[in-house]
Amino acid sequence: MNTLNRTPRTAHSSRGRRRTKRFSSEQAITTIQCRRIPAYELLDEPALCEIENHTDWLLENVGITIKNDPIALELFANAGAKVQEDRVLFEPGLAKHLCATAPKQFKLYSRNPSHTVTLGGNHVVLMPGYGSPFVSDLDRGRRYATLEDFKNFVKLSYLAPSLHHSGGTICEPTDVPVNKRHLDMVAAHLTLSTKPFMGSVTSAPRARDSIDMAALVYDYQYMQTHPVMQANININSPFILDGEMSASLRLYAEANQCVCVSPAIFGGAMGPTSTAAMSAQTLAEGMAGIALAQLVRPGCPVVLGSFHSTMNLRSGSLTFGTPEANLVSMALSQLGRRLGVPVRSGGGQLTSANSPDGQAMMDSTNAMWATIISGSHQVWHAAGWLEGGLTMSYEKFIMDVDNCGALLRMLSGMTVDEETLSKESYLETRPGDNFLSTAHTLRHFATANYESILPDTGPFETWKDNGSPSTAHRANTVYKTLLDQYVQPDIDSSRAEDVAHFVSERKAETPDAWY
Amino acid sequence: MNTLNRTPRTAHSSRGRRRTKRFSSEQAITTIQCRRIPAYELLDEPALCEIENHTDWLLENVGITIKNDPIALELFANAGAKVQEDRVLFEPGLAKHLCATAPKQFKLYSRNPSHTVTLGGNHVVLMPGYGSPFVSDLDRGRRYATLEDFKNFVKLSYLAPSLHHSGGTICEPTDVPVNKRHLDMVAAHLTLSTKPFMGSVTSAPRARDSIDMAALVYDYQYMQTHPVMQANININSPFILDGEMSASLRLYAEANQCVCVSPAIFGGAMGPTSTAAMSAQTLAEGMAGIALAQLVRPGCPVVLGSFHSTMNLRSGSLTFGTPEANLVSMALSQLGRRLGVPVRSGGGQLTSANSPDGQAMMDSTNAMWATIISGSHQVWHAAGWLEGGLTMSYEKFIMDVDNCGALLRMLSGMTVDEETLSKESYLETRPGDNFLSTAHTLRHFATANYESILPDTGPFETWKDNGSPSTAHRANTVYKTLLDQYVQPDIDSSRAEDVAHFVSERKAETPDAWY
Repeated sequence: MNTLNRTPRTAHSSRGRRRTKRFSSEQAITTIQCRRIPAYELLDEPALCEIENHTDWLLENVGITIKNDPIALELFANAGAKVQEDRVLFEPGLAKHLCATAPKQFKLYSRNPSHTVTLGGNHVVLMPGYGSPFVSDLDRGRRYATLEDFKNFVKLSYLAPSLHHSGGTICEPTDVPVNKRHLDMVAAHLTLSTKPFMGSVTSAPRARDSIDMAALVYDYQYMQTHPVMQANININSPFILDGEMSASLRLYAEANQCVCVSPAIFGGAMGPTSTAAMSAQTLAEGMAGIALAQLVRPGCPVVLGSFHSTMNLRSGSLTFGTPEANLVSMALSQLGRRLGVPVRSGGGQLTSANSPDGQAMMDSTNAMWATIISGSHQVWHAAGWLEGGLTMSYEKFIMDVDNCGALLRMLSGMTVDEETLSKESYLETRPGDNFLSTAHTLRHFATANYESILPDTGPFETWKDNGSPSTAHRANTVYKTLLDQYVQPDIDSSRAEDVAHFVSERKAETPDAWY
Repeated sequence: MNTLNRTPRTAHSSRGRRRTKRFSSEQAITTIQCRRIPAYELLDEPALCEIENHTDWLLENVGITIKNDPIALELFANAGAKVQEDRVLFEPGLAKHLCATAPKQFKLYSRNPSHTVTLGGNHVVLMPGYGSPFVSDLDRGRRYATLEDFKNFVKLSYLAPSLHHSGGTICEPTDVPVNKRHLDMVAAHLTLSTKPFMGSVTSAPRARDSIDMAALVYDYQYMQTHPVMQANININSPFILDGEMSASLRLYAEANQCVCVSPAIFGGAMGPTSTAAMSAQTLAEGMAGIALAQLVRPGCPVVLGSFHSTMNLRSGSLTFGTPEANLVSMALSQLGRRLGVPVRSGGGQLTSANSPDGQAMMDSTNAMWATIISGSHQVWHAAGWLEGGLTMSYEKFIMDVDNCGALLRMLSGMTVDEETLSKESYLETRPGDNFLSTAHTLRHFATANYESILPDTGPFETWKDNGSPSTAHRANTVYKTLLDQYVQPDIDSSRAEDVAHFVSERKAETPDAWY
């Protein structure tokens, strides 16, 4: 059924030349991804221990139910878990023990070394939103997303200095058959960007395709020691792991690519409506998935993910960027660090707002602070979301990216030394003098402060004369300018052809499916 | 010149009855003002010590220049400071020693005991914006503020559950002569609200009037042991204290009313353009003012204030809510705690945006997080500001108040115990079940989550059918509803008459001045 070579593709005659060319593109500069300020510790030791003990209780008494994946069940049984039909129960401490082979810190590699990112430790990796069926902009309003939109967001993420990762299904290319979307999406990530990216997980064959396509650019052998991609394995909370997901998890883990295990809990629906319970349940479900990845391949790179939020339990509507969800984000950063794996927080630029307005940025900024200050290592949905993720907004994307830049600046912290305290400036001036022309100001004025990517409004009168443009209107200009400026990064032409060939072959093999 | 009785007004025959009546109003409920989560510590011990040492150097080598206030200079000279003409220099450690009599924590009292607030410790006091010459709303646009606007914001602040303090010059009542505004403003705070408030500082006589008016409601003798009001003493940074300000400071301190000393530094203009220098200079200038208050009356209540932000040093425009300013807010919270006084942070809902849009809430939320997470005790400008404080927006006020409520909810933290972890819920359900009708959810659904005061938008389609209202449009409805619902709090009628009489007498005494 497959005409493409799936055997590991190792060094060949043109390797040296290819690599040089592949690494030559430095167009897209990213902001430093290292935090130099402490992580905020919300919970004290007794509270953390109580949550961890409760997590043990959950794993012993509720466990994880894995649907239609006897291989996963067998792995757990062989590791000492109690398997009752499709349910896996862990004696206290077992899940943590199984997670212990996971690396605390690792890299996701890029053919552009300046885009290689580190997950874990003091590093912060920001990514665009994921999974929206709709897109919107001020010109055309809200509409179903297409492959063109998808490619646009890959390009914008590539160009955004404050994003470190190309994401995955940034928006659904709804004009492509459901069973073939992953091919176009992975091809776009591989060829339109050099930032690390996510592969498909919706079925095992699609996961396989994603890995095979990455290998066309990076080679299997290289990937065995150099993860280049990531997969999001959602737990079907509460406590169910679907067989398609677990099969995809096993494929990525086998290939030593990064597995992020993400429970998805709305308090009151998929778990109790308390922040402590949401935190403990997320940890329990996440540990079950991470344990499976480690059983498949001890030491394979994993991330403790989460997608948690609240609901208005009177109306049933989902709510985002709320203080309760933000408390959970903070607690999970602590719990993940204690488990010894990088943490991907659910709290990105989340909002239930329908347009890129004040509420959108209030919700989003609240969610980002909780995520960033508490020391999450990876933030999904850090740019673009509206309507709780139903829509990727071009304007919101730019506004979020701007805010990400400001937060990254904050992470670089406050340097206290002779140069920053600048006694000379005070000796140069008298009380009441201004400091605009001191040697210190002249030395630093150009770089002292973060500069927003949004055009300055000017004073009220100027702004009014210019038609009172809202932030969204200014962002509209920025996204178009960026797309105009985009230049595709270098890629070895034969590898790019291999990717294109893979996509067209695969598409030709199978009839379209639209559901 | 003054026909009103200025001698202390102590208990009189109707005192008991009056007090009962004054305390009967419980209309406006405030959200708990106590933080149950740790304060974020940005800087480590060596960095904090280096800033404190530099502060000593600044006070020794630059000192504070006090214009036209020989009494203040004499107080400092008698306390061992070196006074050179109008400049006061402190040997290392002296200013800190003089600040040591300041209380770590104290109350601002209200005739409604539920509106008495605590400054210091684990308490957080949020207040509306201060000083805007303009107001705006969606109906009438931006315009000069009037006394009616001022009263509206006093009412809205009184009704806002997440504001604990009535503020001061929330907006300038520009339709009242400059030399008489303070009378109307203080009268409004005293009679339209029961939340603690700020008096005038723009001249010593106006400060005196403010204190005398407060005494008409609270009595001098009561105020000697129960501060009911606060004064904002701005340092004219760098390192100048104007005589009018220092005279006002002395009056408030003598009357045992709270003095907040607020340096005002835009990095690059009033000090070097580095976050470390802004922090050290703010601390130095603040300590000089606090030392003066303690020399006037040892033990009088003081607050270390600050108003710091950044500039775009290319264009000269002031910028707000920036990461650099936010780092300074965090550092000042730490430095103030170490000095042993409550801290009022410069970072409230600050923004340079011209309308209540996405940028406005992004800037504001960033500034509020830095302020709140780092443990500031008092936040000025927590609601309403646009254009860096030039405008109080009715809609932004509501959006900010909503965000304040969410942040206060966050400060109540995460409770980890048997009830919140809820083992029963997991025993009641099976994997994959939802938790919507568990006993735990039914017990908690109504109070589990913060509820926004902004009307829900509903899903996109509903929202679109309703005319796609932005957050600002929804806030417009809320502020009008609140003003419609406002009921003036109870006040003893004879005391209210005394206040009105004081205002009319004072107004009649002096010709109008419009500058």
